[in-house]
Amino acid sequence: MEIVKGFSATSQTNYQLNVTTLLKHAARSFGKQEIVSRKHDGSLFRYTYKEAYERIKRLANSLVSLRIEVGEKIGVLEWNTYRHFEIYYGLPGTGAVMLLLNLRLSQQELSYVVNHAEAKFIFVDENLLHVAEAIAPFCKTVKGYVIITDKPLSDISTSLEPIYSYEEMLGEASPDYDWPIIEETSAYSACYTSGTTGRPKGVYYSHRDVYLQALMYAANASISIKDTVFQLVPMFHVLGWGTPYAATIVGAKLVFPGRYSLKNLEDLTTLLVEEKVTMANGAPAILMPMLEYIRKMEPKPDLTGVRIISGASEPPVAMMKDYMDLTGAEIIHSYGSTEAHAIVTLNRVIPILEKGFSEEDKWDFKRKQGYIVVGLDIKIVDENGRELPHDGESAGEVLLRGPWVSGSYYNAPESEAQFSDEGYFRSGDVGTISPEGYLKITDRLKDLIKSGGEWISSVDMENALISYPPILEAAVVGCPHPKWEERPLALVVLRDEFKTKVTQDEIRKYLAEKFVKWQLPDEILYVTNILKTSVGKIDKKAIRMKYKEIYTSK
Amino acid sequence: MEIVKGFSATSQTNYQLNVTTLLKHAARSFGKQEIVSRKHDGSLFRYTYKEAYERIKRLANSLVSLRIEVGEKIGVLEWNTYRHFEIYYGLPGTGAVMLLLNLRLSQQELSYVVNHAEAKFIFVDENLLHVAEAIAPFCKTVKGYVIITDKPLSDISTSLEPIYSYEEMLGEASPDYDWPIIEETSAYSACYTSGTTGRPKGVYYSHRDVYLQALMYAANASISIKDTVFQLVPMFHVLGWGTPYAATIVGAKLVFPGRYSLKNLEDLTTLLVEEKVTMANGAPAILMPMLEYIRKMEPKPDLTGVRIISGASEPPVAMMKDYMDLTGAEIIHSYGSTEAHAIVTLNRVIPILEKGFSEEDKWDFKRKQGYIVVGLDIKIVDENGRELPHDGESAGEVLLRGPWVSGSYYNAPESEAQFSDEGYFRSGDVGTISPEGYLKITDRLKDLIKSGGEWISSVDMENALISYPPILEAAVVGCPHPKWEERPLALVVLRDEFKTKVTQDEIRKYLAEKFVKWQLPDEILYVTNILKTSVGKIDKKAIRMKYKEIYTSK
Repeated sequence: MEIVKGFSATSQTNYQLNVTTLLKHAARSFGKQEIVSRKHDGSLFRYTYKEAYERIKRLANSLVSLRIEVGEKIGVLEWNTYRHFEIYYGLPGTGAVMLLLNLRLSQQELSYVVNHAEAKFIFVDENLLHVAEAIAPFCKTVKGYVIITDKPLSDISTSLEPIYSYEEMLGEASPDYDWPIIEETSAYSACYTSGTTGRPKGVYYSHRDVYLQALMYAANASISIKDTVFQLVPMFHVLGWGTPYAATIVGAKLVFPGRYSLKNLEDLTTLLVEEKVTMANGAPAILMPMLEYIRKMEPKPDLTGVRIISGASEPPVAMMKDYMDLTGAEIIHSYGSTEAHAIVTLNRVIPILEKGFSEEDKWDFKRKQGYIVVGLDIKIVDENGRELPHDGESAGEVLLRGPWVSGSYYNAPESEAQFSDEGYFRSGDVGTISPEGYLKITDRLKDLIKSGGEWISSVDMENALISYPPILEAAVVGCPHPKWEERPLALVVLRDEFKTKVTQDEIRKYLAEKFVKWQLPDEILYVTNILKTSVGKIDKKAIRMKYKEIYTSK
Repeated sequence: MEIVKGFSATSQTNYQLNVTTLLKHAARSFGKQEIVSRKHDGSLFRYTYKEAYERIKRLANSLVSLRIEVGEKIGVLEWNTYRHFEIYYGLPGTGAVMLLLNLRLSQQELSYVVNHAEAKFIFVDENLLHVAEAIAPFCKTVKGYVIITDKPLSDISTSLEPIYSYEEMLGEASPDYDWPIIEETSAYSACYTSGTTGRPKGVYYSHRDVYLQALMYAANASISIKDTVFQLVPMFHVLGWGTPYAATIVGAKLVFPGRYSLKNLEDLTTLLVEEKVTMANGAPAILMPMLEYIRKMEPKPDLTGVRIISGASEPPVAMMKDYMDLTGAEIIHSYGSTEAHAIVTLNRVIPILEKGFSEEDKWDFKRKQGYIVVGLDIKIVDENGRELPHDGESAGEVLLRGPWVSGSYYNAPESEAQFSDEGYFRSGDVGTISPEGYLKITDRLKDLIKSGGEWISSVDMENALISYPPILEAAVVGCPHPKWEERPLALVVLRDEFKTKVTQDEIRKYLAEKFVKWQLPDEILYVTNILKTSVGKIDKKAIRMKYKEIYTSK
């Protein structure tokens, strides 16, 4: 790309986009706004932006005491807490790089990531010690562990060494810190993609990336000073999808749920209601179970006007409808990826389109991934790399480019093919773009099922299955077939009340309303749960592996 | 400032922030959203973002035909129209620099600006030909004039030459244009400050400045896809305060009032109501007369929920209250300057502060300039440059720094003192910052009145005067006094119904509720209008000049 230099401006050209200035300014302008965080004992911790900023400066001084230097990578194993929020700003503000560690990765993957990044320290929550302990013997570059706990270090029983206490360090550190001005293209944080193929690959976001993406997200999602934002997306995923920054920019109240799992649905729902949350983000993997919990609540919580940004996979229409009908909350679908630094799209219906919509049109429209945010270039291309028209029909691989999109993976030879010569990232997703500019992902390239030379969308079939009331969850994959190359296999989890009462034929008949006969799955298996990846997506790679002989062994 | 280089990120570091990509992307994602613009004949022109983008590409090709080169400056003399919007994107997208010409400047100032910038062409509206004709003999570098008109060129009677037709050029040009990638620190547009002291000075905004400021403004003002934005601020002032870009980013519907003056209050108000505007921007200089017009309307227009960003000078509380009471519209005060690339502050009350407010507290609070947007550094300093605390009491000069703040003036020797060594712009405004982070401008440095060694705020006194029902407008300046150095002089415009019924003593008595005796003006003069500058602010320099002997000649 040739870059043309024009006439010189009179700007402050030396001013660098540094992420920590966002919080520094928010503490000045919105100092009294609240941050709420659930602790391990279930109680709520509350403080203000101003108090958070003081602790963030103490944290920065603590890193100096640990002799952590500019450019060094520091691992973080932590839940969604106020301390994770402090680390988001305090750690990279010193020039170090925050390495987000996905606590759901396998031991092999996690130690690979730590070694690949050459992490010098690991910050670890007291109830994630077992994760750190399991990889510690294999982590060659790590010089110490900072334990995130309220307890004195002497009460911590661990094989990790040497260990430091997050709270003791902050208590001893000065609350005055003079932030360095970091050249804006320097790395702020590293996220490793979870590696559905091959080894995890490192995306190193610059300060500029994060700063710009946060601004665009705040503007596009209309996050405002009047919002209370619930940080449901794990903060070890793609920077919590950017919400902690977008909320900071506008001074929104922030709510962190602490450690949670599918066992804490009551805690999550209560927090959302009692703190008067107006905006949340999350994947269907948690939004679906929360909905199941809400179904049983009487009376139902009133979430009128609450916007829930739903990403990671397509939210089923049934889920979106039920949230609206039962609680008044609106689900807004968003699409992104680690490399493209979510949020890439948002499905907010533009007013002029909405006018002609029937109720059914509206819900069908909400299944789309949405419009592509301003700032990002997008192309859909055929197998030969030729750009396809935005006609809502032509499906091709989605290519993305923009100020906060990755241009490479860190130290990953043979990954160049993921990036085009023009600087586009090849997403591996297949989609269409409508004349109105709305992206619809039809499948992952590798999850498309090729049967007799024709394509079948596994995603469309999963969505059709989930819209059938007896079905709670579904996965569809292509399995090798001696005659047709591949044939679809469906796995379904039935709702308790329907167990054993629904036949394969009934399901196939339901599917036949939307699919032609040759597309219907040869086998529909009843399972008790569906394998998921560490980021909560259906693990199709593992499912394909498990059932690879289902059609060939017959 | 030392800049520290950290670890290298994996970003697309070559991607440049170019302003025209904002519109290119908006046309893709929000193509069907509407743009409405009043034409000279009073009718409304309507088209979409997508149609606007096609014409913008034609405009870019037209510039190529005129052999306008990268880095050349092109003057624009135009009202708030859809064509001005096209020029905002089409002209700088080619690498040329858009020189905004304030049509209210004097002939001497305007020709100085054109010559200082060495403008190569001037785009001029058909009913601003007289402005261009008056300066043409003095503009040495201008090679031609592009007439913005619906008429054929043969119907245009002008002494300008050579002339070109905007519409004919677009009609002949190709709708395909491949935008160059412009190095982001290159100049996008030039605005000259109106020169209350000395010659006008040129601020050359970079593409990066405009891109970043637009994002921050959209996020902070919560402009959304559901908004209809009324572009009331003249687009020859500080890029229309950034609203055309912020609206583009989120795909808001845009409404342009075309040519207007104080004679078009009915047109303005009707347009605002009929197009269902939800957000507008403007100075009290136009908002006050609009309010006077609304006062006489029956029934009053329902503007419930409409936000009006009010800048250039402090909106009187009486005006803010009356807008709310009569129409339901909320006035949001914003502060900025050409150099700091408005918007610097916004007065939106953060929810946690609002809780303890009485009705009176609330209105008093709304008089403040507001919180400083995230992204900008601010300092208030005393006469020796020492930083003052944010205690709401200590008043000092406001210094600003940030990614979109000017670091110099173009080719203006002896203007270095306006910028500090640390990169701060010295605003010349005096203010306090409260512990909650809200800026309150108490005066312009040069408008403070020094009487017997003590300071009197002319702005506070003007506001007190305006809150007195019989008074429509007021100006207060300091005039030389043989004994006290300076003494205040007040000029007031009475409302029609009160003419001759109010005495000086009654006014002085009203003021005495808020000011101590020695602060009260020695003279209060009744005038029929108050001198304004080209940007609609009270022209205190001219008033001081006119009345410089009022206290010394006695």
